[in-house]
Amino acid sequence: MADTALADAEKGSGQDANVVRVDLGERSYDIKIGRGLLATAGADIASVLPGARLAVVADETVARLHLRDFTKSLNAAGLEHSVIVVPPGESTKCFSEFERLCDEILAAKLERGDAVVALGGGVVGDLTGFAASAVRRGMAFIQVPTTLLAQVDSSVGGKTGINSRHGKNLIGAFHQPALVLADTAILDTLSLREFRAGYAEVAKYGLLGDADFFAWLETNWQAVFAGSSEREEAVARSCQAKADVVAADERESGRRALLNLGHTFGHALESAVSYETERLVHGEGVSIGMMLAHEFSERLGLLDEETTMRVRRHLTDVGLPVRTGEIPGQLPPAETLMDIIAQDKKVSRGALTFILTRGIGEAFVEKGVDPAQVLDFLKEKLAG
Amino acid sequence: MADTALADAEKGSGQDANVVRVDLGERSYDIKIGRGLLATAGADIASVLPGARLAVVADETVARLHLRDFTKSLNAAGLEHSVIVVPPGESTKCFSEFERLCDEILAAKLERGDAVVALGGGVVGDLTGFAASAVRRGMAFIQVPTTLLAQVDSSVGGKTGINSRHGKNLIGAFHQPALVLADTAILDTLSLREFRAGYAEVAKYGLLGDADFFAWLETNWQAVFAGSSEREEAVARSCQAKADVVAADERESGRRALLNLGHTFGHALESAVSYETERLVHGEGVSIGMMLAHEFSERLGLLDEETTMRVRRHLTDVGLPVRTGEIPGQLPPAETLMDIIAQDKKVSRGALTFILTRGIGEAFVEKGVDPAQVLDFLKEKLAG
Ligand SMILES: NC(=O)c1ccc[n+]([C@@H]2O[C@H](COP(=O)([O-])OP(=O)(O)OC[C@H]3O[C@@H](n4cnc5c(N)ncnc54)[C@H](O)[C@@H]3O)[C@@H](O)[C@H]2O)c1
Ligand SMILES: NC(=O)c1ccc[n+]([C@@H]2O[C@H](COP(=O)([O-])OP(=O)(O)OC[C@H]3O[C@@H](n4cnc5c(N)ncnc54)[C@H](O)[C@@H]3O)[C@@H](O)[C@H]2O)c1
Ligand SMILES: [Zn+2]
Ligand SMILES: [Zn+2]
Repeated sequence: MADTALADAEKGSGQDANVVRVDLGERSYDIKIGRGLLATAGADIASVLPGARLAVVADETVARLHLRDFTKSLNAAGLEHSVIVVPPGESTKCFSEFERLCDEILAAKLERGDAVVALGGGVVGDLTGFAASAVRRGMAFIQVPTTLLAQVDSSVGGKTGINSRHGKNLIGAFHQPALVLADTAILDTLSLREFRAGYAEVAKYGLLGDADFFAWLETNWQAVFAGSSEREEAVARSCQAKADVVAADERESGRRALLNLGHTFGHALESAVSYETERLVHGEGVSIGMMLAHEFSERLGLLDEETTMRVRRHLTDVGLPVRTGEIPGQLPPAETLMDIIAQDKKVSRGALTFILTRGIGEAFVEKGVDPAQVLDFLKEKLAG
Repeated sequence: MADTALADAEKGSGQDANVVRVDLGERSYDIKIGRGLLATAGADIASVLPGARLAVVADETVARLHLRDFTKSLNAAGLEHSVIVVPPGESTKCFSEFERLCDEILAAKLERGDAVVALGGGVVGDLTGFAASAVRRGMAFIQVPTTLLAQVDSSVGGKTGINSRHGKNLIGAFHQPALVLADTAILDTLSLREFRAGYAEVAKYGLLGDADFFAWLETNWQAVFAGSSEREEAVARSCQAKADVVAADERESGRRALLNLGHTFGHALESAVSYETERLVHGEGVSIGMMLAHEFSERLGLLDEETTMRVRRHLTDVGLPVRTGEIPGQLPPAETLMDIIAQDKKVSRGALTFILTRGIGEAFVEKGVDPAQVLDFLKEKLAG
């Protein structure tokens, strides 16, 4: 694998890479996907922002594993840069790290035309993107996502932000990057658990709108996990799926809601375990949540049992949890989960909005879901 | 005066008000200018954002003087609202107040379709606008500017932000309001010094691009200060002037730079007195700065002596300072001022960018100013 990366680097700026174009008028940009891209990242950045000085942000873990390779490639391209290291973990998405990051970007004396780079997972991407949006009312921003979740989800769409004591991601900005470089080799150092969690979002794109992609994943998921070229294809198809939705709906009014398939139930579960990642990481919540969305759709007579079973089988095959019972420790009662959902979704005149589905690739937004029915369903699921 | 305001209120939603439309495509909005507008503010807001719940932000001083009238008009229009009070003064534009404000807006449980209202001067407008841009990645925002400076300058253009230890206004967002309500009667409680400081920006619009307006001000400034209907006209023409520039150049690349007439020298002076407002407020710095820009233009042979004298006479008439010697206390040497200017402007290959002028209403951007010439000029001015 290292050889391939090197060979790519010698060839120059990753000619084999997949490129997904995110179409947003004058804010359009490319997501470049390929194995070993880190080695040519400097050249790629220089071609988009010639002569830019960079402030590179990474968490301690990613800095330890990948910063050297990255800065080597920046040096090779003659790009001046400074490095800002933040602690790893969700709690880094907070006001005080935001302040510190803004201050350090300013201390690095970046000017217009310079850029801020996020080298990391969704946490570093969200925090750094928000700081980039705010410093001088908007610095150029580059994403080098290092988790599968960040490559297929958080680095596409321009949402950036931090958490507040009132909830997750409540403070932030829409700030599109100038370039996204997704090196699939970088995922080799990710824990299996984190890889799987990101994979839940990959499967989601199939389930919400692309039955062919889901079938392809059923056949090829092992190669995706192993790091063969199928991984690049899975990342590229996922980015393309999200980019299509985002281009149609940049500011999230209609279609973009489909991306929340599995997320209403998932968020409730994450909140129920107080976001303790030892018990449940986001992608695991999404996996269980997607399963619940299918089962609930089946309950409403929208979906046949076989389809639900097929989804369950695939998620189970890759090692993702599909039942609330798989979450270690005690869960709160269904009523508490319903309260979380109602708060989260803002019940409008007694009805809930959910993403439901009529089949694989056929998710849709349903605005008239009866909370009582959801409650009954959850009671049963928590009991079973 | 109070009678006029009441009469306006009884007539309904300020039919006599001047309206300046800021043309920014789907982000377009109206600036409504009139005496006594506060009494009908609720109705005006309700017509733009029907059914919105509001979080109203004011500093202690403005809250004490004007909050009751404002909330009365919100109540009359049936608009639910909560109030957030911040300390007065420039130091309120900081990270910790930003965090507190975001938290309180969230605590007020505003949803999409609800709005954040800034009732105050530029400090409250800048801080509140930035918080409005960030909470839920963008809440609707309404400005009710209560200083002359805020009515003619800071509430037009969409710039919002806070200060950093690296400099003023370095952290923020472009966030356009949905409506601006400029009640000229509210300025009656402003100190003469603050009114004058705002007037420097009014005069600036004449000097930078509208000789007729400057001539009109020479004739009518006393009525503007006294609060006759000329005040509304002065505010409206100023807003129109800024709106025209902003519409042509929303994100500040070219023409918008003309608005910085007098500001390079002015900022250097503000910085030289460490932003101690007892010694110099922003508008006073701008007044001296505009004077220096004219004198420097004269020195370069761009402007005749009579024009410079005419400008000096008008600024002196209204009571604004026109010489660095009028700033109480010791000033640093010319070299220090030059360092501040060079830092502020980022000298590109030894040349400075300045706004110079060829006559009243004929300011232009000059990119090739020789720092040595500026230094000589400043030495002389500080000595004289
Ligand atoms: N902006 C969006 O649209 C969007 C979408 C989905 C999720 N998110 C956000 O993304 C965040 C979750 O992202 P995440 O799952 O990437 O979390 P993360 O950034 O915390 O990364 C997970 C862990 O993996 C480590 N890591 C990262 N890359 C690694 C690598 N290559 N090798 C070894 N370890 C590595 C990190 O140090 C961290 O400990 C959440 O805050 C969520 O809100 C944002
Ligand atoms: N966003 C922009 O485009 C822009 C443009 C110019 C200036 N600004 C910013 O504006 C700020 C200065 O604005 P400002 O001069 O309005 O300062 P300010 O908001 O501090 O107001 C000045 C003082 O007047 C008081 N006050 C306000 N309204 C009053 C009233 N009606 N009666 C009595 N007292 C009143 C305030 O409490 C304060 O003490 C600076 O921070 C500057 O950076 C922003
Ligand atoms: Zn997700
Ligand atoms: Zn000014």
